Amino acid sequence: MEQDFLNIAKAAKKASLEIADLSGELKNQALLKIADMIELNKNEIFEANKADLEEALHMLENGEITKSTFNRLKLDENKMRDMVQGVRDIAALANPVGKKLFTRMLDKDLVLTKVSCPIGVLGIIFEARPDVISQIPSLAIKSSNAVILKGGKESKNTNKKIMEIINKALEDVDGFPKNVVQQVFSRDDVAEMLKCDEYINLIIPRGGNNLVKFIKNNTKIPVLGHASGICHIFVDESADIEMASKVVTDAKTQYPSACNAVETLLIHKNFPKADELLASLQLNEIKLIAEPEAWDIEYGEKTLAYKFVNSLDEAIEHINTFGSGHTDCIITTNIANAESFMNKVDSAGVYMNASTRFADGFRYGFGAEVGISTNKIHARGPVGLEGLTIYKYKLIGNGNIVDDYVKGIKKFNHKDM
Amino acid sequence: MEQDFLNIAKAAKKASLEIADLSGELKNQALLKIADMIELNKNEIFEANKADLEEALHMLENGEITKSTFNRLKLDENKMRDMVQGVRDIAALANPVGKKLFTRMLDKDLVLTKVSCPIGVLGIIFEARPDVISQIPSLAIKSSNAVILKGGKESKNTNKKIMEIINKALEDVDGFPKNVVQQVFSRDDVAEMLKCDEYINLIIPRGGNNLVKFIKNNTKIPVLGHASGICHIFVDESADIEMASKVVTDAKTQYPSACNAVETLLIHKNFPKADELLASLQLNEIKLIAEPEAWDIEYGEKTLAYKFVNSLDEAIEHINTFGSGHTDCIITTNIANAESFMNKVDSAGVYMNASTRFADGFRYGFGAEVGISTNKIHARGPVGLEGLTIYKYKLIGNGNIVDDYVKGIKKFNHKDM
Repeated sequence: MEQDFLNIAKAAKKASLEIADLSGELKNQALLKIADMIELNKNEIFEANKADLEEALHMLENGEITKSTFNRLKLDENKMRDMVQGVRDIAALANPVGKKLFTRMLDKDLVLTKVSCPIGVLGIIFEARPDVISQIPSLAIKSSNAVILKGGKESKNTNKKIMEIINKALEDVDGFPKNVVQQVFSRDDVAEMLKCDEYINLIIPRGGNNLVKFIKNNTKIPVLGHASGICHIFVDESADIEMASKVVTDAKTQYPSACNAVETLLIHKNFPKADELLASLQLNEIKLIAEPEAWDIEYGEKTLAYKFVNSLDEAIEHINTFGSGHTDCIITTNIANAESFMNKVDSAGVYMNASTRFADGFRYGFGAEVGISTNKIHARGPVGLEGLTIYKYKLIGNGNIVDDYVKGIKKFNHKDM
Repeated sequence: MEQDFLNIAKAAKKASLEIADLSGELKNQALLKIADMIELNKNEIFEANKADLEEALHMLENGEITKSTFNRLKLDENKMRDMVQGVRDIAALANPVGKKLFTRMLDKDLVLTKVSCPIGVLGIIFEARPDVISQIPSLAIKSSNAVILKGGKESKNTNKKIMEIINKALEDVDGFPKNVVQQVFSRDDVAEMLKCDEYINLIIPRGGNNLVKFIKNNTKIPVLGHASGICHIFVDESADIEMASKVVTDAKTQYPSACNAVETLLIHKNFPKADELLASLQLNEIKLIAEPEAWDIEYGEKTLAYKFVNSLDEAIEHINTFGSGHTDCIITTNIANAESFMNKVDSAGVYMNASTRFADGFRYGFGAEVGISTNKIHARGPVGLEGLTIYKYKLIGNGNIVDDYVKGIKKFNHKDM
């Protein structure tokens, strides 16, 4: 391990232990200070962003980055306002740490409490989206975790400036520990981060498929995220044609590059209005592909693969084989089929008669979104602040010893309070 | 990937999708059938165990296994009765799958439900303890997961026989899917299992430190477990001498080879009765080591390292530096110190005035124990059946589309039900 990164990681670990115990009030004070300071210094941030945009323009002209990367990089007054408001919104959420998940008397003088607590040190790797650099530290602070960030090189000036402002804000908050939020810059740092399972407890990548796949394949640290979003809609025999057309159109066109956009349409062979459905989708500017070369392509644009299936079970099997476990929907009027679909499809989100685009932390009412996970442990689907916490067990006794219970001198009563 | 193992893994994946949706009744029927069949065929199991014991006796004589491994290997009538009762106890627990974790109206015709569901395929690697071979499949069945088991070679005859009986029992249960419980035998199979992140969702090692460390270092699949149990007791300035002596003695001697036994005693330098405490521990046959070569040794016997510290904070820092995040205790009459200790010590279990030996799923009232985890995500501390589940989100709408909410035509109400 490189000494420089090791020092950063050790400092993060130390900070994580210090912030673990911080009051909700102090954390909120820090968040509001960050929001104020970003607002106050927005012109400096726009200046830094301009420097990034100048470099990015060359890269765009040389074809090194796409137009959409360039656009994501660009901060304007709207994005700035959203960024500041985003931090304030996080401050307004309930403290996710210190919640009593249960209290149980094991015996009259022996009380067990399960309490939510932070995970420890988060490693966040994200691509060119400078708004993430204020959101992630805010989520980390709110959940009492320390964080090491690595942003995209395209936004390095903007990131540096925003981080400078954040850390200056945190310095002004009496009693707030040092090194809760740190930033690294190089590819080598990413390599070090992925090796650093001694100090980093969770990696969260925010970016495209390739980034996420690379990270998942190159670390033993748990990774929270999703590499791809191959979402399906199955139009059952009994579906309402208008509903099918409306939902599929929304799921494909409302924001085609989102991970919860639909990529594959499965149609029951006995659905009587299939031609009408396909025609209506084409009218809505959706490009239909009848036989794609592969069933696991995330198009990211208004392209939709489709296939006729012989049965509900064939649809379920197709989804469990080719899907990414993200979000899949059945359009039907048959409740039994919907239940079977929702129980048997092994995805984070299983929907009946609703657009896959609803798979989102804000739409689910979580108040914040850490990311969307297709993992099978810890957190699945849209992840709110809760996903950045774990729990500990507090046991308060009066000198109780196990030997008394093994010998039957005392007995557990296990009474939930 | 070896073709043989790949086929086993694919069959497990298929089985996991089939058992995901099984009713609690059918799962319990399967469990009770397993218990009956083990009971009915116990003499065959004793025969198989005798074959293992004969081989093991040679290994014991040649020093290839320890006396305690030999003893763990040996089945007797008591262990057999416990084994059968263990399976019946699991049947009697509540179904951990299909629990509604919350129901939330997103809008009047759009209802989100968070529902517990199985993880998928478990890979279990355990050392010579033939009682585990009935317990693990039972936990897997109860939680609707498929499982691939690799037992210790020392108990291979016993394991094979019990698995044969289990699978014969499952065949007799109408509607129970095939290949929910499979077994592999070779070291090569373990290597394949650890590589098989496409099909295996969680690895659970049950065995000594070396096994767990090896597994954690050689797989990208999440591992649920603990490599070591370096538990501490800190005797604060204000501690009651009798309580301190009683709790430390229990934590060290009640079962010295357990992972929740105490390994290090920290004593506040101003605790007035330190000499008396140390003398009483020696009277209780505890061997005290004042300056061990390392502070992270798990003795597994009646040996206890001890150290004087200058303050509560020094004790906390020692524990967070050298501990394994398992279970740590403060003995004190000072509530503020206890709270500070329990909030700042970053361990799965943080105790006040109670023996570390309480860290156990049964003692916590979970009804079953999958293992004890020192992970920082998913499940921490003693893990009950809940640790073998995750959740999915079911969303039931009426043709709802996101565009309506983005445009303000409809509004989310996010009302919990």
